[in-house]
Amino acid sequence: MSKGEATREVILDAAGELARTVGFAGMSIGTLAASTRLSKSGLYAHFKSKETLQLQVLEHAKARFLREVVVPALAAPRGEPRVRALFENKLRWNSQPGGCIFVAAASELDDQPGPVRDRVVRDQRDWLDTLAEVCRTGVTEGHFRADTDPAQLAFELDGVMLCHHTCERLLDDRTAGGRARTAFESLLARHRA
Amino acid sequence: MSKGEATREVILDAAGELARTVGFAGMSIGTLAASTRLSKSGLYAHFKSKETLQLQVLEHAKARFLREVVVPALAAPRGEPRVRALFENKLRWNSQPGGCIFVAAASELDDQPGPVRDRVVRDQRDWLDTLAEVCRTGVTEGHFRADTDPAQLAFELDGVMLCHHTCERLLDDRTAGGRARTAFESLLARHRA
Repeated sequence: MSKGEATREVILDAAGELARTVGFAGMSIGTLAASTRLSKSGLYAHFKSKETLQLQVLEHAKARFLREVVVPALAAPRGEPRVRALFENKLRWNSQPGGCIFVAAASELDDQPGPVRDRVVRDQRDWLDTLAEVCRTGVTEGHFRADTDPAQLAFELDGVMLCHHTCERLLDDRTAGGRARTAFESLLARHRA
Repeated sequence: MSKGEATREVILDAAGELARTVGFAGMSIGTLAASTRLSKSGLYAHFKSKETLQLQVLEHAKARFLREVVVPALAAPRGEPRVRALFENKLRWNSQPGGCIFVAAASELDDQPGPVRDRVVRDQRDWLDTLAEVCRTGVTEGHFRADTDPAQLAFELDGVMLCHHTCERLLDDRTAGGRARTAFESLLARHRA
């Protein structure tokens, strides 16, 4: 990694943390300059506009999400073990400081049309598709019943993970992980062949 | 209602809409002045600070939420019919322009300590408690199994409603209502006595 690329990584990590904590609206070149101690003019040179910054923060977070949540789950055996790995990886992702950037983006940017919203929509669709695809391996491997609808199961699993996110992040509820796992087990029990 | 109270209602409705669409960070005395065509100085006279404005917007939304979602559900017979009414009322609330203000608040304000966050936490706890309390009537009426954990069922129902909110608001997914109702029916089937 060149020095320029390394600096860029540091900036995008800091920007992602701002987006998760103070929100996308609060993440500006100004607040980013304060949190990275870089000059505003240097940051402008990197990102040109707030929109470019937001898009690159999302792209950077997506790459990290794939690396930390999706790819390790795909290394697990197809079917139930893979669904379980994806679920556990996402709970861990939710529990990072500031929570999940995509949950923050979905809620904050859902009424603001433009390229940033389009990107958030695409990322959310990709996530639900990945989840459904992994659930489908549970059907083809014979772990889940043949009449399991993978997209419906993905919807329900995502609901469990969203409620986990709210309870843990907002309510600081130590039982959130336990509740989410109980919900997960009964969902799977319902679909097991 | 006096003229002053009526004006206050109009302002708080407009502010709530801003909070739902551009976020709490984007809802300022300035943007509110633009959307209501009232003077900034008049608005300052009503709210003194951004924090007071945010707190009153949440209080106003809570009153409307009780009126439109909770109270009508409590008029339904205890047990399953009441759980069903609460669920349907919340889906309708999610589907209003801009979505659910509490979902927006939970995600945006979870990392910003202070009285506004405290208020959001209290509202979220009240909601989960109400949901659990209504689920408990399903047990006492003999509609749900005696070993149903009302707080766990409330957690799972809230997850379904959160995923409905994301899919409908962000993805503009017309199947969100159907998916949410399918999830609801299978959750209830699992707990039915």
